[in-house]
Parts: sequence; structure tokens; C-alpha cells
Amino acid sequence: MTEAIARRPVAVLGAGGYIGQHFLRLLADHPWFEPTLLAAGASGANRTVDEVWRLPEAPPAAITGRRLVRATPAAVARAGVTVAFGGLPSGTAGPFERELARRGVAVFSNASDLRGADGVPLLVPEVNEAHLALLDRRAKRRAPIVTNPNCSATGLALALAPILPVLRPRSVHVATYQALSGAGWPGVPSLAIADNVLPFIADEEEKLAAETRRLLGRRQGAGVRSWATPVHAHCARVATREGHLEAVTLEATRRPTRRAILDAWRRFDPLAERGLPTAPHPPVEVREEADRPQPLRDRWAGSPPAARGMAATVGRVRWDAPVLRFFVLSHNAVRGGAGGSVLNAELALADGWLG
Amino acid sequence: MTEAIARRPVAVLGAGGYIGQHFLRLLADHPWFEPTLLAAGASGANRTVDEVWRLPEAPPAAITGRRLVRATPAAVARAGVTVAFGGLPSGTAGPFERELARRGVAVFSNASDLRGADGVPLLVPEVNEAHLALLDRRAKRRAPIVTNPNCSATGLALALAPILPVLRPRSVHVATYQALSGAGWPGVPSLAIADNVLPFIADEEEKLAAETRRLLGRRQGAGVRSWATPVHAHCARVATREGHLEAVTLEATRRPTRRAILDAWRRFDPLAERGLPTAPHPPVEVREEADRPQPLRDRWAGSPPAARGMAATVGRVRWDAPVLRFFVLSHNAVRGGAGGSVLNAELALADGWLG
Amino acid sequence: MTEAIARRPVAVLGAGGYIGQHFLRLLADHPWFEPTLLAAGASGANRTVDEVWRLPEAPPAAITGRRLVRATPAAVARAGVTVAFGGLPSGTAGPFERELARRGVAVFSNASDLRGADGVPLLVPEVNEAHLALLDRRAKRRAPIVTNPNCSATGLALALAPILPVLRPRSVHVATYQALSGAGWPGVPSLAIADNVLPFIADEEEKLAAETRRLLGRRQGAGVRSWATPVHAHCARVATREGHLEAVTLEATRRPTRRAILDAWRRFDPLAERGLPTAPHPPVEVREEADRPQPLRDRWAGSPPAARGMAATVGRVRWDAPVLRFFVLSHNAVRGGAGGSVLNAELALADGWLG
Amino acid sequence: MTEAIARRPVAVLGAGGYIGQHFLRLLADHPWFEPTLLAAGASGANRTVDEVWRLPEAPPAAITGRRLVRATPAAVARAGVTVAFGGLPSGTAGPFERELARRGVAVFSNASDLRGADGVPLLVPEVNEAHLALLDRRAKRRAPIVTNPNCSATGLALALAPILPVLRPRSVHVATYQALSGAGWPGVPSLAIADNVLPFIADEEEKLAAETRRLLGRRQGAGVRSWATPVHAHCARVATREGHLEAVTLEATRRPTRRAILDAWRRFDPLAERGLPTAPHPPVEVREEADRPQPLRDRWAGSPPAARGMAATVGRVRWDAPVLRFFVLSHNAVRGGAGGSVLNAELALADGWLG
Repeated sequence: MTEAIARRPVAVLGAGGYIGQHFLRLLADHPWFEPTLLAAGASGANRTVDEVWRLPEAPPAAITGRRLVRATPAAVARAGVTVAFGGLPSGTAGPFERELARRGVAVFSNASDLRGADGVPLLVPEVNEAHLALLDRRAKRRAPIVTNPNCSATGLALALAPILPVLRPRSVHVATYQALSGAGWPGVPSLAIADNVLPFIADEEEKLAAETRRLLGRRQGAGVRSWATPVHAHCARVATREGHLEAVTLEATRRPTRRAILDAWRRFDPLAERGLPTAPHPPVEVREEADRPQPLRDRWAGSPPAARGMAATVGRVRWDAPVLRFFVLSHNAVRGGAGGSVLNAELALADGWLG
Repeated sequence: MTEAIARRPVAVLGAGGYIGQHFLRLLADHPWFEPTLLAAGASGANRTVDEVWRLPEAPPAAITGRRLVRATPAAVARAGVTVAFGGLPSGTAGPFERELARRGVAVFSNASDLRGADGVPLLVPEVNEAHLALLDRRAKRRAPIVTNPNCSATGLALALAPILPVLRPRSVHVATYQALSGAGWPGVPSLAIADNVLPFIADEEEKLAAETRRLLGRRQGAGVRSWATPVHAHCARVATREGHLEAVTLEATRRPTRRAILDAWRRFDPLAERGLPTAPHPPVEVREEADRPQPLRDRWAGSPPAARGMAATVGRVRWDAPVLRFFVLSHNAVRGGAGGSVLNAELALADGWLG
Repeated sequence: MTEAIARRPVAVLGAGGYIGQHFLRLLADHPWFEPTLLAAGASGANRTVDEVWRLPEAPPAAITGRRLVRATPAAVARAGVTVAFGGLPSGTAGPFERELARRGVAVFSNASDLRGADGVPLLVPEVNEAHLALLDRRAKRRAPIVTNPNCSATGLALALAPILPVLRPRSVHVATYQALSGAGWPGVPSLAIADNVLPFIADEEEKLAAETRRLLGRRQGAGVRSWATPVHAHCARVATREGHLEAVTLEATRRPTRRAILDAWRRFDPLAERGLPTAPHPPVEVREEADRPQPLRDRWAGSPPAARGMAATVGRVRWDAPVLRFFVLSHNAVRGGAGGSVLNAELALADGWLG
Repeated sequence: MTEAIARRPVAVLGAGGYIGQHFLRLLADHPWFEPTLLAAGASGANRTVDEVWRLPEAPPAAITGRRLVRATPAAVARAGVTVAFGGLPSGTAGPFERELARRGVAVFSNASDLRGADGVPLLVPEVNEAHLALLDRRAKRRAPIVTNPNCSATGLALALAPILPVLRPRSVHVATYQALSGAGWPGVPSLAIADNVLPFIADEEEKLAAETRRLLGRRQGAGVRSWATPVHAHCARVATREGHLEAVTLEATRRPTRRAILDAWRRFDPLAERGLPTAPHPPVEVREEADRPQPLRDRWAGSPPAARGMAATVGRVRWDAPVLRFFVLSHNAVRGGAGGSVLNAELALADGWLG
């Protein structure tokens, strides 16, 4: 009976961009949040959702015809929203989000500017919910800022979290096959990628390694001690539309059975009883076919329907003790982008951080 | 003055297939070999080169209009050729090639059937020329069989050979981005790969690891002791036409300077003075741009012009001692296929193995 | 209240193929039909739906784990189904379907074998419902066979039917941009189409012209007099997954206003009151953006949700009287394939042809 | 013996762009012209050819390491060049080219700004050499400006010119399958075109129709009377790298034999005796295979080697008198771009227009 509960009015920042439109898609009919302010930059403002829409699927009926507006942080705050979802580009995002928080608007952001900043949790709910406690409850007027990690770090952290206890790896090697949408719009020129692979994405390997290790680290007082195990990353762009695939190798210090490893993934569902609308159950799906996961077929993994694209898919599990190899796939713009922040906001609301 | 030297008449086996046609392309105007017998299976026999041609570039004028024929090993031997280039599919190749050798026809093969068989060198001339000595000079009538390795192993071995002495790695990790042509024709269905990556190629990871280690191993009497260092491989297919890209990480036991590593690659040219027509100089090209090598731009690397597609390209060299990361690219159907065997035959001829 | 109505048990023929799987997807939860027999050829039989599944989206839960079987027409008839949906390849389909009908099983087929055969309507319900009367009510025991047209003819006929009365064209020119899935599985080799367009599809131009003209023709006794206007077709394959795009030019003999033409399309909904579950309303969607329709964005057009992929989308309407140019897009495997036959069966059932 | 002839120093305008780099590629070793000034806009200036290079093939050795410069028309004139090749974007090109001509620098331009302007021939040498006479010999100081047509018009005009005399069509219908490079760099976003066709290219249909008709028209005094036959065009973008394919239908008023039509194409070579280095012989290649021309295989058509990419390829010729259907393919960036202007300059030089 969702109709009995008033949905909180929220803002979507960067609604003209690719991640912003995934936010709109996920929030249009969200049971807890209602997108009432659609903010965009100069190129999107004053145009309708339909006019700026870039996703293959049509915009949800609930937001069809709505108009994007330019809005300062002050204007967002005055508009009566207390939560904003951040799809702004790097550089612009940080100061804007800080100012919003200062004015009492909670921010759940996909931007990289404030990831790892003091008092700003970098969060994947199934992986490091405890990091939410980095938020400062005493800062009365200042609202929380929570960021989701880089799109490739999200999938890797989800795949690693369940199995670290049974494997205790001494090193992690990862090579990515990242989708075009990871670069937003207009993103990669078609002439750059047609019949090609681009073996470089600026700053991506550093983010993938550092953010994965932070997600898997422990909170210590007001900070986080990153996981000590090194993560050696290669990041490359391939000509798929959506879904980041990653080839992962762990050198383990333990030698459990193959079954124990698979069970660790399958039993993993730390949000099972939390009732978060966008949470996938299970968050990691394991496939035993010889040729999965695939971007085309597994990008939308996730149950129930509201969690489509929110599950990571693990497959091709090869265990030659003490070396484990597998592939993991997750939807970069959903689980690794807008959906990640929506889930973060759901958790924050359930945990009482949104007043 | 190549006109003074009679070209040896050679056969191309599997001339209707993708690798077979790369053989034809490379041999049509070769200074030492002349393709006089174009053998094909049922689907290609009795058709002209033009009718079966699958490569984007037009067939060379020297073979335009030539007709493919069905031929038993006996017929190949009777046709007066003493060298055959093997582009037959696995399964068919082994017995056919054995019988050819028994009848005195030397075989240079891209097929995997006899790789690693007794007395059959697995050869990349710049990497393990010494393995040619596995051939048995006493077997008077039997002609030599030499195989080139798997297309992804070729590039990896070329990239590793120059730097092993300065790094002495304890482990090698590799993830591949392999082109469509690696699967031959008809190969991968377009519906399987459009907007997709396939994280599985049958037997490929095993071949990549085992053949790379064999290439880097030492001959011991009539056998080869494979390189002891483990190679952990992931193999995936992406939607590029030609050129296998590989992301490589070494955990080194030595800590040379970055310059020393680059110099090791740049100084590497063991065939410099051999005068082999198809040998690239240098065999490994190092690029310092942020985003190379790329399949589209580097697949045809190799100087002089007769060695187009024969050089491996290394780039994105990241040295965080003791961990080295880089990408390597090589043309799977040229350096990692037909061109590899053509170079093997050139070396065998120069070294006196072809009588 | 569909639960009160028993669903008719139906067979899907060719369930291992691409069109067969679209049949399964459409019928899994169909309110009138229930797929109880999943028939496949040698390569698919005895495997589960999951094992043979080729579509990007996962198989519907209702058929997950179901096993495909080999079945003769006699076995299909004995299995208690009275309706079969045909996804068999050409050549096989005709005799199989004839034998099914002889045994009292109605056939709704995507195969081309019996299109235009005596007593076999070629049907697009919104276009030529009257052709259903070609079925012979007197043939007591023989069940009806109805075919949907070629995938490119379906879209063209849907686009033309509404506007013929206002334009009365003297000629139709069409050039197609057809998707990979039109060739089924394995279909087009990836090496044939990557970075390419194939300007030839066997027999396609002939089918497109002849079937469009038949659909737009009039029933005359036991036959059909095809529409007299010539249709000049070019058919080409492009590297899209699904959705056939067509560039259409009409030379009109009337000169209505542009608005009158658009209104003719918009008002067209001959099945509006029929209550067919898979019928789209409207069947032709008109878009006014500068760059639509597009395969990526419009292939799934169709309302209500059960009619996804069943609407044709018309756009880029350029009226320089007396010459009309526009593009039309329709989903080749849904509206132009499995969905077309499902809708035909719904109409036949509603019209009393299924006993 | 080209070494005996001094090459004329020429400028390439827009050397940082996609067409500009095709100019560089074609001129690097040109026997008559030598690119001595490489002019670029703000984003390219002060960078080397290697740094800005976008084409898949490596830059020619003759220009490797050369630096691009910003240059006003005055600076170009002062640099001692008397011929400039224009690869500037529309809007910028017109005034710049006018000023160059005023200062005595002849311009051969790919830009659309001055196409059809007074005294500026729109030229495809094999089609309308007579239009060169639009140049005004009396304008003593002003140098000539000659433009090549739109990339899709070039191929169509080349295909039509030989057969108009034998067919005398009353109408021409054309639908295009245009390559990504037609939009330059960065051009089409990869997310816009992956798994898609874009049925709209701004102003392209108008240019294709108007420029084709102008090319096929007759000079009348200082102007051109366009060909009277209507050209009905659809223009669409597909995901190929290079090579525009076009589906063409003519409604003829004559009924020659099929052989007469093919012969008209095959005998067409109006530049046969002119000795222009970049002219292809024949300019229109006719293929009889069922599935040609294809962008992948025919884009580089053209003999001798210096004319690679300069020939149009015609195929799939279907003659159902009086309706002729065929496909034509030409390389948009070579024949339809930089190469077109290089050939125009060669003709102008040979005809004495360059002093």
C-alpha cells in the first residue's frame, strides 16, 4: 500500500545527462521518492524530458513532458526538496553538492569529486553499510552527502565481499571490458571505437583500485582504513552499450572447496530483511554456463523487477587452488551509477539518516 | 635481385578458410615461395580464389582466378611441392600433416593438432629459434613439421621474451580481448557478439598458458622443459575484426628502471641480420601514447612493408616495481597465424632444414 | 478476469530457433494460449529452454526448465493441441504444416513455404482481415493454415494501408535496413557484417514486393487479386540486432494536405474494438522528431504492454506533393514474425475459425 | 621521372580534421603537390601530425613529426603556396576561402559553403569537366575556387553519368547507407549509433538531390542549368567506418538491353588519356557478384594504386525495363572528400587554370 505513504520530493541534478536519465527512470515511480525538480545545465534547461532523452527505452509516463530547469543550490533548497540525486559532471559536482548539504539537502551522488572526502561515505550497501557511520549526526543543519563508487569498482567490490572471508587473497588482478555508456553523452566518438578497443580510460585504473580497497576497508573513527591487499587493474573500453565486464584473478591464502566459494556468493544477502525497494536479492547471481556472464544477456540481472540491473553476475569460476579466476558483470549506469545512489538513499532513509 | 632465384613451389592447405586466405595473401608475391597448389575442402574445391575470398582487401593479382582443388596428401606430394602451409581445421589437420611429412613434404602449420608433439617444434623465430633443433635430421625421408602457436600465445611470448631477463617474473597474469577472425569463418554468429563480449573461447586459456610457457622454455634433448612461471589467463572475444589485445601483469623479482625495461623491448631483434623477408624489424614496437596499442590502429604494425601485421605492439607500460603492467597487441591472423608459419618456413629454409 | 478462461494448449514448432523463442516469449503468459508442446529439431530436442535460449532477455519463468522434444505431426496432434505456431525453417515447414492441418491442428506460421498457397491466407489483421475468408469452412476435418508475411513486408503494409485511400499512389519505392535477427540463428557471420552493410538478402526483394501487394489486394472468390501498383525494392542487411527500418517513397495521384496524411495514420485502428490481447493500439505510431524512427529506440513500440514490439513506427514524413517520403520501422521478429502469427491466431479465434 | 619536376608547395586547411588528414595522406607523396603548410584551428595548432592523427593507418613518413600551425589567409599567401586544399568546417570555410582566392591562392575545397556560388565550379572531373569554364579567366588577380560535391552526391553522379544517355530517366530514387566518417570527428556519438541506424543527416537529402542535379546539368554562360529530372533522396547513417552505399532506382524512358547498360558503365573513362595521377581507371567498377558492392570490401576500389578509394563500385544491377535498380558505393572521405578535391586540382593544373 504505497499510496498511503507520501513520497519525499527529490531533485535530480544533471537530468539532461546519461546518468541523470537513469536516475529519472529509477525514480519516476519510486515508492519513497518523487522527482519534483529536474535540474540541468545550459544545454538541457528549458527543454522537456522527451526532448533531451538519450536512453533506448522511452521515458516513463510519470515524467513525460516534464521540463528541466536551471537551479542553483539555493533554488534547489527553496524548492522544498530535502534529498538530491547527483548526476553532475566531475568538477561541477563537488562545490554544488557541498552547498546543497550546507543548506540542508541530503545528497546521494554518482560524481567522483567528494568520494573519500571527510565525512562522506563511499557506499555500496551490501558491502560496507558500516561506513554510513562516517556521517556526523552532530552537524545539525548540514545534511549528509553519500557517494556511490566508480562503476567498475562497484561490480568488483560486490564480487569480492562475499568471498574474502573464505579466501583471504594476497592479491587481486582485474582487467575490465567497459561499456560505452560509462563515458556518458556524447562520450566516445563512434569513429574511435568502431572495430576497436580503447586500452585507456583516464584515472579509471586508479579509481578502480583505490575505491575497491576503500569499500572493503574498515571504518576507524572518522576515517576508513583501506583494505591492505593490492588491486592491480587494467581498464579498457569496448563497443558494448551497457554493462561492465571484469576478468578477476585472486591469489588466495586459504584453500576452501569450490563449493564453499560458490556458497559464499550464493548465501550473500546482507540486506535480505531490510525492505529496500531497489535492493536485489540476491545481490550476486552465480551462473554455471560455460560462457556467462555476458553484457548483452546479464546487464539487467536483478530481482525483484524494481531491482533490474542492480545485481552483479559472477560466472566462469575457475578454482585452481590457490588461484581463483572468474568474470563479473554489473550494469555500469544502474548498479554502478544511478541505481547505486538510489539504493544508498533507501538505506540512509531506512537507517534514519534523512530525518 | 629476387628474380634470379627460383621460387619454391608450395601448397596452401585450407585455402578456402580465413587463415588459408591470409596464407595466399602473404605468399602470392613471396620472394622464396610460390603457391602452386591451392587445396581446399568440399565447400571450397573447384571454386576460384575470387569466389571463396573472405578478406576485406581484394585477392592479390598473382592468384586471381586460380582454382582451388581437393587434394590428398599423396596428390600434394605428387604435385611437386616440397613445402605445405597448413590452414586446415583442428582434427583434420594432424593426420593430413603427418602423412605429408611422411611423403617428404615439409609442413608449416597453424593448426593446433600437432603443437607440442614429439619432434614438432612450436616456433616463434624471435623467441625460441633453438627449438628448431627438435627436428630430427636423421629421419631421412620424413620432412619436418613446424607449428606456430595459438594466436594469443604468439603476442604474449613476443612481449615477454625481451623482458624476462631483466624482470625474472614470479607470475604472469593476462586477460585477452580477441578479435572475431580468431574464430575463422563463419565463426561467431553476429547475433552472439553484437553489443556483447563473450567471456569464453573453448580451450583458449589452456593453450595461451601452456604454449606461452613452452615457447619460453628450454630445449632438453628431444623435448622442451616449459618455463616454470605460472601464467594465469582469461580469454574473451570482442567485436573487433582483427588484432588480439592482451592486458598483461607481471610480478617481478627484479627491480630495474623503467628505462631498462623499455630498452629491453627496443633492443630486441634477434633476427636482425638474417634477411628473412617477412621478419619485422623490430619485432616488438613500443608506443608511449596514453591510449595505445589499439586493434584498429596497430594491427598492421611491422616494417618493412613485407612484414605488415608481423610486429607486436606494446604500450601503456606501467611500472610500479615490482609489478609491471602493459598491453600488447598483435595481428591474430598474420603474426599469430599465417604470417607466423611463413616466417617459420623462412627461418627453416635459411637454417638449412628444407634441403 | 482471464483466470476463468481455460487457455488452449498449443504447440510451438521450431522452439530452438530465434523466431521460435520469440513465440515462447509471447505465449508463456498469453491469456488465451498455453504452450504445452515445445517442438524442436535434432539440435534442440531434449535440451531445456534455458540451454537453447538465444534472446538477450531471460526466458519467462513460466517456461524455464521446460524441455524441447522432437515431434512428428502425428505426435503433435496426439498431444492434444489444436493450434500450432510455426517457427520452422523454409523447406521443412510446408509439408509439416500441411500434415498438421490434415490432422486437425490449426497452424499459424512464420514460414514462407505456404504463403500464397491456395486456401492459406497471408494475413496482417489490421490490413487485410477480409482475406481470412479464404479459409474453407466446408473442409470439415482440415484445420486452417494462416501465415504472416515476410518481416519487411509487414512493416511496409502497415505503413501503406492507412494512407492508400488518401494518396492512391502510382508507384512505391522502398529500401530496407534490415536487422541481423531477420536471418535467424546462427544467421550472418560476424565477420561478414562487422563494419559493413550487405546489399543482398536472398529472395527478399521479391517477397517484399509480392507480399506487400498481396496484403493490399482484394479477395476474389478463392483467390486474391494483388494490388496493381508496382513496388520497387532494395533490401540490405545492417548491423543492428532487431528492427527493420525502411525508407519509403510514394508517387501519389492525389494531393491531400500533410495533415490529412498524418491523420490517416493516426486514426487507423481497425482492431480497436476487438479485444485481441496482442493487438497494438494504435498499430502505427507517428513520430515528429527529426531523427525517428530508429531501430534502437523504436523497435519495442506498441501499447498496451502485451503489444510491445507490435506497432510500426512512422517518421520523417516529407510531403512534396505529389511525392511522399517517410521511414517506417517495425520489429522484425515480433510484429514481422512470431507476434504477427500470435495476432493472427487471436483474430482467428475471435472470428470463430478455431472451433 | 617525377623527381625532375618540382612539386608545387600547397597548404592543407583543417589538417587536424578527418578530411584534412585524408588530404595529408593523399598529398604526402603526391607527384605534383607538396604539402608545406599544415593549417589547423585552435585545437590542432602547435601539435604534430602524429599527435592529432585520427585515421586507422599510420601517417605517411613524409609528414610524420610535422607541426600544424594556425594561419590566416594572409599568412597562407605569404607562405609561398599558391594552392590550398580545403578541409575546413562549414561556416568557417567560405570567408576563409574567398580571402585566399582574393590573395591569389587557388582553393580546392571539400566544404559546402561555396558550392554553387557564382564562378565556383562544383566539379567531378569525369562528370562535368566543362563546368571548369565557370572560372573567370579575366579576373586577373583572383585565383580559382573549385569545390567537390557532397560525399553522397559524388557516388551518385559517377554512377549516373555513364548511363543517362542510354536510359534518359524520368526520375531517380536513392536511399543511402552512409558511413560514420561522413560526420567527421568527433562526429556521431558511439551511444547514438551502436546497434542503431540514424534516419536523418542534416541537410543531406537536399544536398544529395541538388548537387547531383547540378553536376549532371549544363553550363549556360556564367551559370549552370541543373538536370531537370527529379532526385528523391533518403539519407541514413549506419555503423560503418568508411564508404557510402546507395540504393538507386531509375525509371527510364528508354529500353536498352542489360548489356548495353553494363557496357555504358564499363566504357566510361573520360579521363583515360589525361595522365592525372589520382584518377581511377575505370572510374566506375562494375561487379557481378550477388552481394556487392559492400563498404568493407569495395571502399578502397580504384586502380592504379595512387587511385585507391577513388573508384565508385556499381553492383546488383537489376533491369526490369523500364526500371533499373542498382547499388553504388564510393569512399566518402576519399572520392567523396579529399580525393575529389585532389583530382579537381590535378585537372585544373592540367587544363592550365593554375598559372
